[in-house]
Amino acid sequence: MVSNTQSLAERILSGDVRAAARLMRDIDDGISGANEQLKQLYPHTGKAYLLGITGLPGAGKSTLVNRIVEHLRKDGLTVGLVLVDPTSPFSGGAILGDRVRMSRHFTDPGVFIRSLATRGHLGGLSWCTNDVVNVMDAMGKDVVIIETVGVGQDETEVVSTAHTTVVVLTPGLGDEIQAIKAGILEVGDVFVVNKARREGADRAVRDLETMLSMKGWKTDEFRPPVVRTEALHDEGLPELMDAIACHRTFIETGERLKGKRVERARYELIELLKETLLTTVLGIRGGMEAIDAISLKIAERRSDPYTEVSRIVSESLKGPGK
Amino acid sequence: MVSNTQSLAERILSGDVRAAARLMRDIDDGISGANEQLKQLYPHTGKAYLLGITGLPGAGKSTLVNRIVEHLRKDGLTVGLVLVDPTSPFSGGAILGDRVRMSRHFTDPGVFIRSLATRGHLGGLSWCTNDVVNVMDAMGKDVVIIETVGVGQDETEVVSTAHTTVVVLTPGLGDEIQAIKAGILEVGDVFVVNKARREGADRAVRDLETMLSMKGWKTDEFRPPVVRTEALHDEGLPELMDAIACHRTFIETGERLKGKRVERARYELIELLKETLLTTVLGIRGGMEAIDAISLKIAERRSDPYTEVSRIVSESLKGPGK
Repeated sequence: MVSNTQSLAERILSGDVRAAARLMRDIDDGISGANEQLKQLYPHTGKAYLLGITGLPGAGKSTLVNRIVEHLRKDGLTVGLVLVDPTSPFSGGAILGDRVRMSRHFTDPGVFIRSLATRGHLGGLSWCTNDVVNVMDAMGKDVVIIETVGVGQDETEVVSTAHTTVVVLTPGLGDEIQAIKAGILEVGDVFVVNKARREGADRAVRDLETMLSMKGWKTDEFRPPVVRTEALHDEGLPELMDAIACHRTFIETGERLKGKRVERARYELIELLKETLLTTVLGIRGGMEAIDAISLKIAERRSDPYTEVSRIVSESLKGPGK
Repeated sequence: MVSNTQSLAERILSGDVRAAARLMRDIDDGISGANEQLKQLYPHTGKAYLLGITGLPGAGKSTLVNRIVEHLRKDGLTVGLVLVDPTSPFSGGAILGDRVRMSRHFTDPGVFIRSLATRGHLGGLSWCTNDVVNVMDAMGKDVVIIETVGVGQDETEVVSTAHTTVVVLTPGLGDEIQAIKAGILEVGDVFVVNKARREGADRAVRDLETMLSMKGWKTDEFRPPVVRTEALHDEGLPELMDAIACHRTFIETGERLKGKRVERARYELIELLKETLLTTVLGIRGGMEAIDAISLKIAERRSDPYTEVSRIVSESLKGPGK
């Protein structure tokens, strides 16, 4: 039996899945005690391999992620799965829409699934996602997969700090590939053209390879492979797993993984700082009620956001060196 | 001749387009003097009608926006156009990729175009977009269009504070519509199925209408219409302009526009506060160099982000009431 006098962090470290679920709920609800638990867990993180998966809605990411989990499980690896859905207003313990319902891994104790949605988090979803990734890492999951819907700035950032980032596209998205442009090309370590049985798959692969070749890779850089999959029929998955493993080997050579870890630490730090500064200052300055009153003044042009913000900041911050 | 002893804000208010371009460049570069100019301009804002346009990459938003601008210009209205592209690393005075190059409005003095890209803005693009919208508003543009690529959280927020938000979809995106789910349905005041000559347009319209009807609208709510367009051939544009005008009439009835203005003011205030707190604290605490040193400590698990952030916050903030 698990003792209730143990902290959530201690229970998580001793393998208590319900304690992990509870802490993730606290994180999502913004319960202030959560950071104390996360602090205790942090020394036990940094062991999981972080795999980011992103792409447009409808690219078949969920089906693909399910297949990836299957392959990882066959290799005896445990998996944490963080589904970030900024377009949905509902967070959930393990369920978010159809995409998880179709998951066969729901009852597998080697897989822990958590979904995160917007729910009006003021500071965005990034810090919250980082926290949940850290809990799964501390739980001892071998691989933590972060799946994001969309190609927004937040979504791109959150996966780009993973160790390996997979960008999922589909055929017939010639326009999309043009539109996605440089940003997503910068982010991807492995590109997938999913739904490869569809017309236009060859062209999509060719277009993508052409765009990637124009980038001018240095000899010590990893040149992202383009893999064709048809996740629905489990086609191309061995090739995808090989491509991911290949990038992992590359990253784990020399100082690269360390560099990735520092980059990720910086991202965690900045996101958490941004969020904490905002919520703390709002708390001190009268919370959302005060903000509402100021907003009304601004809307009526009796003030402006620049004046109000510089007032709040100078009233809230100590000077340098104090 | 424009006197150089005038402030940028004064020059903008007297119609100097180059001064506006200059201030927007300063905003993008994070020049600290920009806020002083924005403060001077703010009392002259709040007159423009803000039209948000969002949707997936490849939905044909740029072509559609070009058509919308054409129609607004035919009605004798001046237009400001803010193109937000979080997937591109390049901001530009007026040029960002093909989509603006194809614009016929580039040489029209009644249209002012500005594009914004990520460029590693720490606080995201939102505050920067708000600033540029305010400059265009102060310039006296009748309508300011904010176009965002992507369906991320930031992108959705920035358009959802517009007075009217148009969500652009394409046929054959059955999956996407499922994937986009509630989030984008909440945001849209008008829905467009663009590329309506393509197969599946009828189904897309039907699916969308079904999803919208499931929402259960109250009698005093605006039920978003679904409009079919083929922007490439200028089809469906009168219907779209009517739908936008219809929503505008709705919004301008009673207290609704005021509510929208307060909502927008709150959004501007929070985004600017978030950004200003972060950059000010980083500045005081030794800038990115200090952050790099802390990130290394965290990456090596000699510290953790929670401890570091609570230290930075308590060192930086005054207590309540002080």
